[in-house]
Amino acid sequence: MKNKGYIDLGFAKFDTKREKIKGFPEVILGLGKDEKHLTEIVAKAIGKSGRLLITKATASQFKAVKKKLAGSKKYPVKYFDIAGIIYAGRFEKAKLGKIAVVCAGTADVPVAEEAALCAEAFGSNVERLYDVGVAGIHRLLNNVNVFKGCNAVIVAAGMDGALPSVVGGLVSCPLIAVPTSVGYGSSFKGLAALLTMLNSCTVGLSVVNIDNGFGAAYQAHLINKLASK
Amino acid sequence: MKNKGYIDLGFAKFDTKREKIKGFPEVILGLGKDEKHLTEIVAKAIGKSGRLLITKATASQFKAVKKKLAGSKKYPVKYFDIAGIIYAGRFEKAKLGKIAVVCAGTADVPVAEEAALCAEAFGSNVERLYDVGVAGIHRLLNNVNVFKGCNAVIVAAGMDGALPSVVGGLVSCPLIAVPTSVGYGSSFKGLAALLTMLNSCTVGLSVVNIDNGFGAAYQAHLINKLASK
Amino acid sequence: MKNKGYIDLGFAKFDTKREKIKGFPEVILGLGKDEKHLTEIVAKAIGKSGRLLITKATASQFKAVKKKLAGSKKYPVKYFDIAGIIYAGRFEKAKLGKIAVVCAGTADVPVAEEAALCAEAFGSNVERLYDVGVAGIHRLLNNVNVFKGCNAVIVAAGMDGALPSVVGGLVSCPLIAVPTSVGYGSSFKGLAALLTMLNSCTVGLSVVNIDNGFGAAYQAHLINKLASK
Amino acid sequence: MKNKGYIDLGFAKFDTKREKIKGFPEVILGLGKDEKHLTEIVAKAIGKSGRLLITKATASQFKAVKKKLAGSKKYPVKYFDIAGIIYAGRFEKAKLGKIAVVCAGTADVPVAEEAALCAEAFGSNVERLYDVGVAGIHRLLNNVNVFKGCNAVIVAAGMDGALPSVVGGLVSCPLIAVPTSVGYGSSFKGLAALLTMLNSCTVGLSVVNIDNGFGAAYQAHLINKLASK
Amino acid sequence: MKNKGYIDLGFAKFDTKREKIKGFPEVILGLGKDEKHLTEIVAKAIGKSGRLLITKATASQFKAVKKKLAGSKKYPVKYFDIAGIIYAGRFEKAKLGKIAVVCAGTADVPVAEEAALCAEAFGSNVERLYDVGVAGIHRLLNNVNVFKGCNAVIVAAGMDGALPSVVGGLVSCPLIAVPTSVGYGSSFKGLAALLTMLNSCTVGLSVVNIDNGFGAAYQAHLINKLASK
Amino acid sequence: MKNKGYIDLGFAKFDTKREKIKGFPEVILGLGKDEKHLTEIVAKAIGKSGRLLITKATASQFKAVKKKLAGSKKYPVKYFDIAGIIYAGRFEKAKLGKIAVVCAGTADVPVAEEAALCAEAFGSNVERLYDVGVAGIHRLLNNVNVFKGCNAVIVAAGMDGALPSVVGGLVSCPLIAVPTSVGYGSSFKGLAALLTMLNSCTVGLSVVNIDNGFGAAYQAHLINKLASK
Amino acid sequence: MKNKGYIDLGFAKFDTKREKIKGFPEVILGLGKDEKHLTEIVAKAIGKSGRLLITKATASQFKAVKKKLAGSKKYPVKYFDIAGIIYAGRFEKAKLGKIAVVCAGTADVPVAEEAALCAEAFGSNVERLYDVGVAGIHRLLNNVNVFKGCNAVIVAAGMDGALPSVVGGLVSCPLIAVPTSVGYGSSFKGLAALLTMLNSCTVGLSVVNIDNGFGAAYQAHLINKLASK
Amino acid sequence: MKNKGYIDLGFAKFDTKREKIKGFPEVILGLGKDEKHLTEIVAKAIGKSGRLLITKATASQFKAVKKKLAGSKKYPVKYFDIAGIIYAGRFEKAKLGKIAVVCAGTADVPVAEEAALCAEAFGSNVERLYDVGVAGIHRLLNNVNVFKGCNAVIVAAGMDGALPSVVGGLVSCPLIAVPTSVGYGSSFKGLAALLTMLNSCTVGLSVVNIDNGFGAAYQAHLINKLASK
Repeated sequence: MKNKGYIDLGFAKFDTKREKIKGFPEVILGLGKDEKHLTEIVAKAIGKSGRLLITKATASQFKAVKKKLAGSKKYPVKYFDIAGIIYAGRFEKAKLGKIAVVCAGTADVPVAEEAALCAEAFGSNVERLYDVGVAGIHRLLNNVNVFKGCNAVIVAAGMDGALPSVVGGLVSCPLIAVPTSVGYGSSFKGLAALLTMLNSCTVGLSVVNIDNGFGAAYQAHLINKLASK
Repeated sequence: MKNKGYIDLGFAKFDTKREKIKGFPEVILGLGKDEKHLTEIVAKAIGKSGRLLITKATASQFKAVKKKLAGSKKYPVKYFDIAGIIYAGRFEKAKLGKIAVVCAGTADVPVAEEAALCAEAFGSNVERLYDVGVAGIHRLLNNVNVFKGCNAVIVAAGMDGALPSVVGGLVSCPLIAVPTSVGYGSSFKGLAALLTMLNSCTVGLSVVNIDNGFGAAYQAHLINKLASK
Repeated sequence: MKNKGYIDLGFAKFDTKREKIKGFPEVILGLGKDEKHLTEIVAKAIGKSGRLLITKATASQFKAVKKKLAGSKKYPVKYFDIAGIIYAGRFEKAKLGKIAVVCAGTADVPVAEEAALCAEAFGSNVERLYDVGVAGIHRLLNNVNVFKGCNAVIVAAGMDGALPSVVGGLVSCPLIAVPTSVGYGSSFKGLAALLTMLNSCTVGLSVVNIDNGFGAAYQAHLINKLASK
Repeated sequence: MKNKGYIDLGFAKFDTKREKIKGFPEVILGLGKDEKHLTEIVAKAIGKSGRLLITKATASQFKAVKKKLAGSKKYPVKYFDIAGIIYAGRFEKAKLGKIAVVCAGTADVPVAEEAALCAEAFGSNVERLYDVGVAGIHRLLNNVNVFKGCNAVIVAAGMDGALPSVVGGLVSCPLIAVPTSVGYGSSFKGLAALLTMLNSCTVGLSVVNIDNGFGAAYQAHLINKLASK
Repeated sequence: MKNKGYIDLGFAKFDTKREKIKGFPEVILGLGKDEKHLTEIVAKAIGKSGRLLITKATASQFKAVKKKLAGSKKYPVKYFDIAGIIYAGRFEKAKLGKIAVVCAGTADVPVAEEAALCAEAFGSNVERLYDVGVAGIHRLLNNVNVFKGCNAVIVAAGMDGALPSVVGGLVSCPLIAVPTSVGYGSSFKGLAALLTMLNSCTVGLSVVNIDNGFGAAYQAHLINKLASK
Repeated sequence: MKNKGYIDLGFAKFDTKREKIKGFPEVILGLGKDEKHLTEIVAKAIGKSGRLLITKATASQFKAVKKKLAGSKKYPVKYFDIAGIIYAGRFEKAKLGKIAVVCAGTADVPVAEEAALCAEAFGSNVERLYDVGVAGIHRLLNNVNVFKGCNAVIVAAGMDGALPSVVGGLVSCPLIAVPTSVGYGSSFKGLAALLTMLNSCTVGLSVVNIDNGFGAAYQAHLINKLASK
Repeated sequence: MKNKGYIDLGFAKFDTKREKIKGFPEVILGLGKDEKHLTEIVAKAIGKSGRLLITKATASQFKAVKKKLAGSKKYPVKYFDIAGIIYAGRFEKAKLGKIAVVCAGTADVPVAEEAALCAEAFGSNVERLYDVGVAGIHRLLNNVNVFKGCNAVIVAAGMDGALPSVVGGLVSCPLIAVPTSVGYGSSFKGLAALLTMLNSCTVGLSVVNIDNGFGAAYQAHLINKLASK
Repeated sequence: MKNKGYIDLGFAKFDTKREKIKGFPEVILGLGKDEKHLTEIVAKAIGKSGRLLITKATASQFKAVKKKLAGSKKYPVKYFDIAGIIYAGRFEKAKLGKIAVVCAGTADVPVAEEAALCAEAFGSNVERLYDVGVAGIHRLLNNVNVFKGCNAVIVAAGMDGALPSVVGGLVSCPLIAVPTSVGYGSSFKGLAALLTMLNSCTVGLSVVNIDNGFGAAYQAHLINKLASK
C-alpha cells in the first residue's frame, strides 16, 4: 500500500508522497468533516509524519482529536481557537527566513492567524502586523519596517480588499493576497474583496480563495524556502 | 405648456422647472440618442436656459448639434473629445468654492474629465490630480495639498477601485467615488471597482454608477454650493 | 503610542487622529465582534474621546459594554434595539442644520433609525418621515414640507428601491440613498434595491452599501456641517 | 398537414391553430433570422391569416419581405423603424377597449412603440404617454387622466426601472411592466430595471422579459379583450 | 387623518384609500414583522375595512393576532398553515368568475395555496390543479378541462420552471407565472425558474417575484374582475 | 384513476406509468418534504411497485417511514446515513453490466454514495473509487483498472471540479459528471465545480445538477442497461 | 513522436491515441483559431486518420482548409454553413443504431445541425425533429414516433430551455440537453436555458455547455455505440 | 520632479522609483490606450530606463511606437504579434534561474506567450510546454522533466481551467495560475477557469486576473530572483 504513495482507507486515500514533493505532510481541512472520519484519518496518518495540521477546525473537533490521541506523549494536541487551527504532534520552532502577515481590520484576524500559524508550522518565521486598513494609511506607513528582510508577504482583507494594492507598492518581494468573507451587504461574503485583489494594479501580487489563510501560507512558505536555500 | 413645468415634444418632455429646483438646467445624456432627436431637443430647450450640457456625446453628435445651432452667435458649441462632453451656449467662468477631481490611472481620465468639465459648467472651481493610483502611494502622498480648501472630492478609479478608500482617509470633506469600466477579465466592466467602493471601510464616501462622472459632479457641486453659501 | 495617531492593542489599532480629521471619534461596527474584544476596545478608547457609538450591536453586546463601563457615572450606556445602536458616554443635543431621514416601508425602519441615531450622535438635527413608499405616492406628496430647510436627505428603501428616485426629484439638496436587505426572492438581499439606486435617473443622488445607515449618516452629516458653517 | 395544426417547412413548423386559441395569428421574431428563412415563412404563412406581424426587424429584413410580397395588392408591407416592427397584410383599425402605454425616458420609446404597435395590430385602442420618468414626478401627475377607462397599462422603463411602481399606485387595472436595456454601467443591460420591477411593492403588476414590448402587448391585449366582452 | 388617505402610526402609514383604487383592503406581509408591530397595525386597520389578509405569516404571528382580536366576535381569525396565510375578519364566499391555480410539484403547493387563498379572499372563484409538472405531461393533458371558463390562470413552479410555458400553449386567457424557491444546487433559490419564465416562448404570460403567490393572485383577480363586469 | 397513469392524492399525483417508460418506479426526493406528506405518498405508492427509493432523506424521515410501514414484512426499510438514502421494500441484487462511481475527496463521498446506492437499487453493478482528486494524480493513475468493462462512469467532485476532465481522458464510455457543493469561499456552493465540468475540454462528458447523485445514477443506469441488452 | 501518442507541433500537440480510446479521430474547434494554425494542424493530422471534423468554423476557414488540401483527391472538403461544420476527408455513411436530434425553434437549428452532422460523422444514424417548442405542444405530440428505436435523444433549446423536460417524459433512453444562446434580455446568452435544463425534474437527462452541439453528439454517439454492440 | 519619484505628464505620472523597488522598469498596459498618449509616455520614459515593455499592444500601436522612436539606434522596437508584446530598447539575454510556462490548449498560447516574453524581458530563463491540457493527460506526463530545476511554474488555461490543479500535484515550487478567456457559453469569458483555479485543491498555487500573463510573469520572476540569489 505504501508503495502506491498513499494509505487507502476506502473513503479516503491519505497521501504519503506529498511530504517529499511539497516539503510538508498532509494538512487536513477540518471544515464539515465528520468527527469519526477525522479522528480515523488523524490516527492512521500521524504515525507516518509525526505531526499534522488541521485547519478550519471547531472546538468540538479539537476535543475529539485530543481524545483519540490521548495517552500518547508523542502526539500533543493544541488548539488555536481564533484561527480554528489544531497542531497535532510535535512542531519544531520556525527558523526559516521571514514572512510578514498583515491584515486590514480586527475582523480579519482569524484568517490572518490561520495563515500565520500554518506558516510557522511549516517552519517559516512570521512577523504579524494587524489592523492597518487603508482608511487610516498612517497606521500602515508607521510600520513599514516590518517588511524588511521578508521573502514573502501575506495580506488578508475583507470589505473593500484594498490593502494588498497599497502594501504591494511598498515591498519588493512576492505578495499573496487573501480576501476574507468579512463585511455585509454588497461584500457578498468576500466576493468584493476577491475581485478587488484580482484587479489590483500593483505588480507582484497573486490571490488565493476567500478565507484561505492556509493556501496563502503554503505559497508564501514555498517562496520563503526557495529564498532561504 | 410652460405652466406644467415642461416642454412637450411627444417623444420627450423637457423639464423647465428643474433649473429652479436643482440649480442648473437639463443635462442631456448623449449616449445612444438619435442625432435627429438630440438636435430637436437641443433646439427647443436651449432657448429656455441659454446653455446646455451634453454628456457621453460622440464627435458625430457634436457636429450635428453644431450644425443645428450654426449661424447663431448666441449659442457657441464646444466639444471635449476625451470626456465626450458638449457645451452648447455660453458658460460663465466657474467661481464657486473648490472641488478636487482625482483619478487612479491614465485610462480613468475620460471619466474624471467628464466629472471635472460638468462641475465647472455648473459653476464650481475644480482642481485636478490624475494618475495617482495606490500602487505607487507616494504619487498621492506628495500631492495631498490639492485637497486643501475643498468642499468635496471626486475620485474616479477602475480595476481594483482602491483609491477612494485611501483618499477618504486623508480628507475631511465628503468624497464621491466613481467606479470606471477600465480593466479587463474579472473587472467585469467596472463591477469590481463598484463593489470595492461600496464596501470601503472609509467613512464620508458615497458612490455613483460606473462611469457616471456627471452624477458625481452634480452631487459634488450641490455640496460645494451649500458649503459656499 | 499617542504620537503615532493610534492606540495599539495588537489585534486592533484604535485611531485617535480621526476625530480631528473627520470631526467625530471612532464609530465601532459591532457586527460579529467578540464581546471580549469589543469591551476591551471600548474601555481603552472611551477615555480619549469621552463617547463612542457602536453600530449593528446586539442586546448581548450592549449588556457586556454596560457591565464593562458600570460604576462610571461619566459613561452612561444606552441601547436602541430597533436600530441596534449603542451610545456610550455623553452625547450633546444635536443642534446643527437639518437632515431628513426617509424610509419606504415599516421593514426599513431599522436601517433608517441607524442613520437617524448616528446623525444625531454626530450633532445634526434630524427629521424623520417613515413608510412613504412609492406604491402610495400621496403619502409622500402630503409630507414634502419635511424637506424644507434640509441640507441633506437620507432615503432608505428595500425591495424595489424606487423611493430615492422620486424623492430626488422633489429636493434641491444632496440625497444619500441606502438600499436595505428587506425583501425576498429576487431582491437578493438588497442587490435589487442597490442596482435601482445606482441607476437612478435622478441627479444629486449617491449611494452607500446595503443596510449601511451609519455610512449614509456620516456622509449626510459632513454635508450638513459644511452647509451650516 | 393542416389537420396537425401547423404547416411543416422542416426547419420551421408554422402554427395555424394559434389564432383560434390565442385570438391572433403568429407573430414572428425577426431578431437574428436569416432573410431567406424569414421571407419563406412569411410567404407560406400569410396566405393562412392574411396578415402578419414581425418584431425586432431590421430595415434590411423589411426590404426583403417587401420584395417577396411585391406585386400582391393583398399584402401591403409597412415598417416602423423606431420600433423595428413590420406590418405585412391588412390590419383593421383598432377598436377594442383601451390600453395605456407609458415610458420613462426618450430612450425607452423603441420598446414602448413595439408594445403600442403590437397592441394596435391586435385590435386594442392605445393611448401613449412618453418620457414621464419618476425623477420629474409632476410630468406623470399632470397626465393621470390618460389612465381613465384603461383596462390595462403597459409601462416600459430602463435604468432604475422605478416608473411602474409609481404608476401602479395610481391605477386600478392590471399593469404589465417591461424593463428595457436602456442604461449603462451597473444597469447590466436591463437587469437592474428587471429586478426593480420584480420587487415592486405595488400590487397588480407583473413583468415580462427585458425589451419584450411584444410580450407586454399580448398580455395587455388579452386582458383588454376579456374586459371588453 | 382620514382625509390624507392613510392612518399614521409613525413607523407605519396604513393606506385607507387603496380599497377604493384597487378593490381590496391592505394585505399585510407578515414576513419578518415584529409581532408587536404587526398586531398594532392589525388592530388599527381592521376597523376600517372589516377584514385583513396577512401573508407569509408564522404560526406564532397567528397566535399573536388571534390574541389581540380575541373576544371580538366581529373579527374571527383563521390560519392556513401550509400557505402561511391569516384571514382576520369576515370574508364572503367567492363568487366572481374563475381562476385556475396550477402547480408543478408537491413542494410548490405552499406558494400555490398562497395564491389560491388570496384570490378567494379577494372574491374570485378558484379551481386547483396540483402536481402536474411537465416531466409527466399526461397528468396535465388529462386535466385540461380545468381551464374551461377561466379568465386567468396562475402557474407556480420551482426547479426548471417549465410548466407555465406548456400551460400557456393550452389556454387563451392571461397566465401569471410564479417561480418558486423549490429546488437545490443550481436552482439558486428560484432564480433558475424565474429566468425560465421570463424567457418563455409562450405568449400571454407575465411573471411575478419568486414565491410571490399573493402578487400573482392580485393580478389574476384584477383580470378576473374586469372580465366579470 | 389507474387508467390515467397516476394516483391522485390531490396535493400529489403519483406516476404509475413511469416504471414502464423509464424502467424503474418513482424515486421520491425527501428534501424538504413534510413527514406526513412523505409517509402518505409512500404508503399509497409502495403497493404499486413493491419498492421505493427516497433520496436526500433525513434520519427523522427514515424513522417516520419505518413507522408507517412497520409490521409489514413485505416492506423492509433501510437507511444509508452518509448518502441520506432510504430503501423501502425489497431490492434485488444488482446484476446489470458495470458502472464506476468515482469521487475527488472524502467530503464528496455523500454525493458519490447517493449515486452508487441509487444505481445499485436500479439494478446496475457498481464499483467505487473514492478520494482520487487530481492534486495527487498518482492515486487515480494507480487505479485505472476500475474502469475496465464499465459502460458508464460517474464522477463527483466539488471545489475545482477538475477530476471529470482527467477521468474523461482515460475512459472510452460515457461519463456523467456531478458537481458537489463541497468547498468554501468562491466555490459558491458548487457553482465553481459546475462551471468547470460544463467547460471540460474532455469529450464524452455530460453534467447534472449540483449534488444530484441520483440524476447521475439514473442516466448512467439507462446507458448501462442499453449496453447490457 | 508517434510513440508518445501525439504529434508535436510546438504550439499544438495533436492526439493520435484518441481514436483508439474514444472511437473517433480528433475534432478541431474552429472557433477563434488562426487560419494559418488551423490549416497547419489539418495538414499534419489528416494523414493519420484520413478524415477530420472542424466545428464552429467560418466560411473563410473553410476556404483556407479547402485550399490547403486542394489537389488531393483523397481529402474532399465540405462545408455546412448553417451548422458551421467542415468535413475534411472521406466519411462513410452512418449505419449505427439511431439518435434523434430535436430542437425547440428555428433559431436553434444551427446548434441542432452541429449535433446532427457530428453524430452522423461519427457513424450514428440521425433522425431530425425541428421547431417543436413547448408553446405549441401538439407539434411535439404529433411526432413522438420519431423517438421509436432511439438509443439516445439530443434536445437543443434556447430561451426558456423547457423542451428537454417535456421530451424526457416521453422517452425511455438517455437524453442529452443542449442549451443554446438563442434569446435576448434575461436569457443572458443561454444561461437561462442552461439553468432550466440542469434543474429539470425529468430523469435520464444530462447537460452539456451552451451551444455545444458537438459535445452532445459525442455523448449520444458513445451511448448509441454501446447500445448497438 | 525626479525627486518625487515620478515624471509628471499631467494625464500620467510615470513612476521612476519602481525599478528600484520592484527590480524592473515600468511595464505599460497598451490595452485601450490612445496612440498619442502611448507614444508620449514611451518617449518620456524610455530615457530613464533604457527599455520598456508594452503589453496587450496592437500592431497599430507597435507602428506608432516604432515611428516615434525611429532614427534612434539606441531604442530598437520589436513586436510579438501572438502575444501582443512590444519590446522597446535593448533587453539583455535572460540568465536567471528557470521558470516553466505551460498552457492547456493552442488557444491559450497568446496568454502563455505574454507570460513567457515578459519573464524573459525581466531576465528569467523560460522553458515552454504548450497544449498539454488534462483531457489527454499523457501529453503532460510525458513532459514532466520540463519542471526540473524550476523555481516557479506558470500555467495558463481557459475553458475548464483544470490544468493547474494537476500540474500543482507534480511540482514542488510555487505555481502561478492564469485563467484565460478562451472558451464559449458558460465559460463566461474566463470566469469558469478563474473559479476552478481559486478552488484548486492543490497546494502551492495562487492566481492572477483572467488573461493576465504579465502579472503571472512578474510574480514568477520575483520568486525566481529570490531563489537565484
